Amino acid sequence: MRLAELSERSGVPTATIKYYLRERLLPPGRRVSTTQAEYDEEHLRRLRLVRALIQVGRIPVAAARDVLAAVEDDGLDRHMRLGAAVWSIPHAPEPDEDDPATDAARRTAGALLERLGWDFGRETGTESPAYRMLIASIATMDRLGYPCDVAELLPYARSAGELAVNDLDLVERYEAEEEQVEAAVAFTVLYEPVLLSLRRLAQAEESYRRFG
Amino acid sequence: MRLAELSERSGVPTATIKYYLRERLLPPGRRVSTTQAEYDEEHLRRLRLVRALIQVGRIPVAAARDVLAAVEDDGLDRHMRLGAAVWSIPHAPEPDEDDPATDAARRTAGALLERLGWDFGRETGTESPAYRMLIASIATMDRLGYPCDVAELLPYARSAGELAVNDLDLVERYEAEEEQVEAAVAFTVLYEPVLLSLRRLAQAEESYRRFG
Repeated sequence: MRLAELSERSGVPTATIKYYLRERLLPPGRRVSTTQAEYDEEHLRRLRLVRALIQVGRIPVAAARDVLAAVEDDGLDRHMRLGAAVWSIPHAPEPDEDDPATDAARRTAGALLERLGWDFGRETGTESPAYRMLIASIATMDRLGYPCDVAELLPYARSAGELAVNDLDLVERYEAEEEQVEAAVAFTVLYEPVLLSLRRLAQAEESYRRFG
Repeated sequence: MRLAELSERSGVPTATIKYYLRERLLPPGRRVSTTQAEYDEEHLRRLRLVRALIQVGRIPVAAARDVLAAVEDDGLDRHMRLGAAVWSIPHAPEPDEDDPATDAARRTAGALLERLGWDFGRETGTESPAYRMLIASIATMDRLGYPCDVAELLPYARSAGELAVNDLDLVERYEAEEEQVEAAVAFTVLYEPVLLSLRRLAQAEESYRRFG
């Protein structure tokens, strides 16, 4: 398909697609003349993923390029490739202060993963943005004097575990390994605002049931 | 306590506290001389909440003032007050485009709440930032060609329901109604990065179990 059709099918303006091409977030099309190129279904899929990362995940272009490099790295086995890709997605704000609260938070996070028996998270994942974000969040709650110990964290972690089973079920609907890795990254980012919205609506509902 | 102690106990710099006082995010202290004021435990609690909203929730000052107005409104009953406060917390980015995808998303969101039997969400909550965010998120996934229908949303909503039960259990640890409302707002905002981090770690763990 031509650029105009790629734009129409993805809903992404042509100027934005050209920008992604210049920034190497999208592989170049197949040249058919000096001014025109052909794009295929893979370009469409990749374009949707880039859009999800940048528009919804608000991830900077350079960081999005790193995530895509992990998506494309077929030298890794499926778990490592999927894990590496999701792992490399940065959280929008990633605070990092080193102080006593951070040290205590690191111990709490370690104890939580131990309790859950999450080995991947503990052994390989401790340097991931997600793990650093968890530690920073626990430290913030501690500094502000709100309870955030293993006992408070466990129910959230158990729900996160159920969500992850569901996420991976969605990912396994796709056949090809590359599509699975792309879907894992896209669903991670795209379902975050869905989940946060639903939690707030559920709180309103639960508050109504208890006090209404 | 004096300003210096309030700063030390909250971990918030005195310059920042003075800024919050000027912006009326924090009620003034009790004047004890022309240059000094006394602050109490309520100031400390309110300061923690303001810090959570602005630093973690990244909510603009004007919007934070609206949330606090709802927290303070003791003319409402407990459910309405708690609901109004949580409801008025804005999501950091709140896209809103009106197009066919948004119309379809509105129908999907309505069908989801109907299926869940969430009445508060449907009847009163449809104008809330959370509901608008849900609709915008579903529309984005639709535009990008990712599946996001009631069937895909239901498991996330069920997990959100379990999380909300847990959130309200934490809130009910506090005795006074005003403290409960404050805690509800703080936990809503502070547990969001915790939940998103845990979901990503859980995905890594689940990927390892399936493909590792």
